[in-house]
Amino acid sequence: MPDASLLDAFPTPTDTPFEIEHVAQEFTSLCPKTGHPDFGEVRVRFCPTGPGEGGVCVELKSLKLYLQSFRDEGAFYEAVTNLIRDDLAALMRPRWLVVETRWRGRGGIRSVIRATSGDVPAI
Amino acid sequence: MPDASLLDAFPTPTDTPFEIEHVAQEFTSLCPKTGHPDFGEVRVRFCPTGPGEGGVCVELKSLKLYLQSFRDEGAFYEAVTNLIRDDLAALMRPRWLVVETRWRGRGGIRSVIRATSGDVPAI
Amino acid sequence: MPDASLLDAFPTPTDTPFEIEHVAQEFTSLCPKTGHPDFGEVRVRFCPTGPGEGGVCVELKSLKLYLQSFRDEGAFYEAVTNLIRDDLAALMRPRWLVVETRWRGRGGIRSVIRATSGDVPAI
Amino acid sequence: MPDASLLDAFPTPTDTPFEIEHVAQEFTSLCPKTGHPDFGEVRVRFCPTGPGEGGVCVELKSLKLYLQSFRDEGAFYEAVTNLIRDDLAALMRPRWLVVETRWRGRGGIRSVIRATSGDVPAI
Amino acid sequence: MPDASLLDAFPTPTDTPFEIEHVAQEFTSLCPKTGHPDFGEVRVRFCPTGPGEGGVCVELKSLKLYLQSFRDEGAFYEAVTNLIRDDLAALMRPRWLVVETRWRGRGGIRSVIRATSGDVPAI
Amino acid sequence: MPDASLLDAFPTPTDTPFEIEHVAQEFTSLCPKTGHPDFGEVRVRFCPTGPGEGGVCVELKSLKLYLQSFRDEGAFYEAVTNLIRDDLAALMRPRWLVVETRWRGRGGIRSVIRATSGDVPAI
Amino acid sequence: MPDASLLDAFPTPTDTPFEIEHVAQEFTSLCPKTGHPDFGEVRVRFCPTGPGEGGVCVELKSLKLYLQSFRDEGAFYEAVTNLIRDDLAALMRPRWLVVETRWRGRGGIRSVIRATSGDVPAI
Amino acid sequence: MPDASLLDAFPTPTDTPFEIEHVAQEFTSLCPKTGHPDFGEVRVRFCPTGPGEGGVCVELKSLKLYLQSFRDEGAFYEAVTNLIRDDLAALMRPRWLVVETRWRGRGGIRSVIRATSGDVPAI
Amino acid sequence: MPDASLLDAFPTPTDTPFEIEHVAQEFTSLCPKTGHPDFGEVRVRFCPTGPGEGGVCVELKSLKLYLQSFRDEGAFYEAVTNLIRDDLAALMRPRWLVVETRWRGRGGIRSVIRATSGDVPAI
Amino acid sequence: MPDASLLDAFPTPTDTPFEIEHVAQEFTSLCPKTGHPDFGEVRVRFCPTGPGEGGVCVELKSLKLYLQSFRDEGAFYEAVTNLIRDDLAALMRPRWLVVETRWRGRGGIRSVIRATSGDVPAI
Repeated sequence: MPDASLLDAFPTPTDTPFEIEHVAQEFTSLCPKTGHPDFGEVRVRFCPTGPGEGGVCVELKSLKLYLQSFRDEGAFYEAVTNLIRDDLAALMRPRWLVVETRWRGRGGIRSVIRATSGDVPAI
Repeated sequence: MPDASLLDAFPTPTDTPFEIEHVAQEFTSLCPKTGHPDFGEVRVRFCPTGPGEGGVCVELKSLKLYLQSFRDEGAFYEAVTNLIRDDLAALMRPRWLVVETRWRGRGGIRSVIRATSGDVPAI
Repeated sequence: MPDASLLDAFPTPTDTPFEIEHVAQEFTSLCPKTGHPDFGEVRVRFCPTGPGEGGVCVELKSLKLYLQSFRDEGAFYEAVTNLIRDDLAALMRPRWLVVETRWRGRGGIRSVIRATSGDVPAI
Repeated sequence: MPDASLLDAFPTPTDTPFEIEHVAQEFTSLCPKTGHPDFGEVRVRFCPTGPGEGGVCVELKSLKLYLQSFRDEGAFYEAVTNLIRDDLAALMRPRWLVVETRWRGRGGIRSVIRATSGDVPAI
Repeated sequence: MPDASLLDAFPTPTDTPFEIEHVAQEFTSLCPKTGHPDFGEVRVRFCPTGPGEGGVCVELKSLKLYLQSFRDEGAFYEAVTNLIRDDLAALMRPRWLVVETRWRGRGGIRSVIRATSGDVPAI
Repeated sequence: MPDASLLDAFPTPTDTPFEIEHVAQEFTSLCPKTGHPDFGEVRVRFCPTGPGEGGVCVELKSLKLYLQSFRDEGAFYEAVTNLIRDDLAALMRPRWLVVETRWRGRGGIRSVIRATSGDVPAI
Repeated sequence: MPDASLLDAFPTPTDTPFEIEHVAQEFTSLCPKTGHPDFGEVRVRFCPTGPGEGGVCVELKSLKLYLQSFRDEGAFYEAVTNLIRDDLAALMRPRWLVVETRWRGRGGIRSVIRATSGDVPAI
Repeated sequence: MPDASLLDAFPTPTDTPFEIEHVAQEFTSLCPKTGHPDFGEVRVRFCPTGPGEGGVCVELKSLKLYLQSFRDEGAFYEAVTNLIRDDLAALMRPRWLVVETRWRGRGGIRSVIRATSGDVPAI
Repeated sequence: MPDASLLDAFPTPTDTPFEIEHVAQEFTSLCPKTGHPDFGEVRVRFCPTGPGEGGVCVELKSLKLYLQSFRDEGAFYEAVTNLIRDDLAALMRPRWLVVETRWRGRGGIRSVIRATSGDVPAI
Repeated sequence: MPDASLLDAFPTPTDTPFEIEHVAQEFTSLCPKTGHPDFGEVRVRFCPTGPGEGGVCVELKSLKLYLQSFRDEGAFYEAVTNLIRDDLAALMRPRWLVVETRWRGRGGIRSVIRATSGDVPAI
């Protein structure tokens, strides 16, 4: 089941704001209604808080393991997306954060869910 | 015939506004004049009301069944689009909602219909 | 010859403004100077007036027959475009309307003509 | 339900062999196990028998109505494909015939079924 | 109505075999069942007989006028294709000839018809 | 040589402003220094003055003949572009006009020249 | 763990040979060395034995469930591919069968494995 | 070596501002450190000063010869780009000018350099 | 290990601001947690300070050697990106500078990191 | 330096011949003349010997580590390719084996090297 304790972080290397984007193309969880597997992609984009304020960045391997911990979880797309947003926001307290999930589709319907934290700048 | 009672919902998982898009690529109904089948795609994009205000999100499987209930319905494109908008707005009372239908064409003419509810932000 | 009486309409299904686009990819008329056939595409996009103000939407099959009525008409591109705009505006009195014709070309020149009615929003 | 009596034909216009391909991109039937709709494309390619031997070609509108008659039929992809092949072969007794169905997918699996009659030449 | 007397020819300029392809992208005729217009593309490819045997090539403007003469003709795709093949074969007595028509579609079905005369080489 | 007297016009069919674009993909003139042919594309886009002010639109066949009159003219790209702009502006006195020429290249250099008249709106 | 008993079949609908291809784009199993998930695509193509010889075709939903049963299995790509081939060959005893797995990659290496049964014709 | 005296000009044909773009896709010079050839593309875009102020436009063939004069020159990308900008600005005194060089790469690094003169409008 | 002393510079050739972009598509370093190699692309875009203020530009071959000096370095993506930004900013004191690294992915996750110095204009 | 002892294998899972392809997109070694890094892709395709003859397949993680062992090796493209072929052939004694290396290029030249063992079938 989703396990935020798997997430690890390291101090942000600079106080100058910068941007990080991680795209995990191999995400799977279970449909809470049918138990069948869902497949999708998780995109995380954020600006970390600087080390002067104790800011940290999520470590990539721990992010991989954390995302893998959804493998046997039955959860709605919307809950998955908001949970990842909440766990990453709690871990990093970033300046801003966007989590977007893109699902390959179930019953002929494909979905995209987008949750944010803080003031996300327009691209 | 279209049956809004097929629609099911679950509580929005967070009060923080976020965005959801569902794209159903396999939609069919009947032409009210000729009885011949129409084929199209239905795109639904919305921002749910938060749980603090009793907000809910449409459940995906119920959305599939609801859209399938148009299979034997004879209705104009314009009516189909507005009905889906109305049924989803009534179910969810979302912050905003867009329903767009894209039809493969009849008599050499293809059509796109777009109906909204609330203040839809520019993308 | 172009026959606006072929156009049929049905009451707009809602007072909430929404958008409709019809694209007819198989349009043909005659060149008024040489009598040779012209081929093109007609795009109609509009926002209908609501039923509370007696608003109507053009019916799709009648639009097809209306466009077919140009088959033996000798007319300049510019006149065709403005006539379609005028006939549809007279029929529907829409909030706004755009008619765009795209011609495959004659003598190595291809053309696009765009006529509007009312305040067309930027896309 | 599938109704071969909807199929109509006209005499092949020439004894010289020639080739015909019809591609119906809007086909739908029902899954015999779940009752849910399936969507796909039907491709029919054949060489008609000549009029000297009583040869006929399937008429296009009747083919459309015949394919529409599968709309409420619950049938496996394999059965649908072979039935269309059998009905068309019985109607036309063509020199050769290929029926290929391409299904959009169910449960994350998309399928292609290909059935033939007579000696189909390599393309 | 189709009028082969519109076709004009000029002597083949050489006895060495060579290939000619004409592609007319703006072809229209009428459906013999509904009277509605059909739109398509006509591709003609042939190897003319040499001048030593009285060979001729179809003149391009006359081909255009000939194809335009189908504008008000109600005919099946198959008949149109074979008629063009027959008229061109009668006019030119070419070494070989292929006529292929590609139709934009009617009732969601698009079609390709291919008729030949003589021994057409594989490409 | 370029001959503006070839240009013909017809009265603008309506006082409502509308837009016209003609794209001539087959333009050729001669290099004034080497005498070699240049090949390019001429794009003309304008909004005609209304008939209430004596407004006219350039007739398409006359535009073709006018553009063909540059065939034996030795002129710089820049001069060609401005001359077409001047001749069309003098003929039509349009609300606004853009002439853009795109040249296939000479000596490994391809060029685009753009001249305007009046207040051209951003697209 | 992989469970061939999940596979279900139905009698081949005809004795005439025909071809079936199923493509499952959402396949996942576990790496037997690291326990990390692998993601890939499974393509199955076969010609079923006819009903006269007791031939059957794999049922699509059962194929989906069977492929899902690899979700928690730690197995090499090569073993997965051959096992699917063996299980389907045992179930159907087809005229011929190809199983191809395409893996998204692990450690920067992506792989394709192809196993067959019987005489697979060149495509 | 680069030779600005190769550049030739002709009077701007009009006082109305217009835009010119020349793209030379075949440019080569030498690396000043290794002596190896560099390959790239030179894009020049400008608005010439009008003839009323003695304005001129660079002549195309002279531009080609001028660019060819860099063939045996060892110069940094940055110096090449600014020199072309300076030479063209000195020759033409244009309203504005942009010179952009795009280099195919050296040591696995490709580069783009962009130098301007005057107030370049946003495209 | 990363060695800023490898970086070499030459005086900016002009005081007029201009833009330089270098894209190094072959970058590799080591993962600080696993020791496995990472592969990516480094994009550097900047506006150099003019020679009047002692401004310099990074020399391309020295940039290549500097980037190669990361080959045996174990460092997080974020640290690599900020270090390159810092080293180049210290070397050149540019008007503005952007360093973007794009990583091919590790554990199914690909990443993009973007660090800046000074006021980077929108493109 | 390249270390074949890093290669590990497991018994081929079946005696039926089948095909395996591994594509490693992130390969780097050093140029033996300049010491500069080379970047490329390594494709390995083979048919393993069956377990009845003691046949084995290369294990994927060990292949990754083996390919990484070239990171500090100075070797010509040709030598790298043949060495990988030799090491894999010695490890597996496969029915046949192809090793293809595709190099991103050095000095503007990109290269492909292909070495085989045994009778490789045409694709």
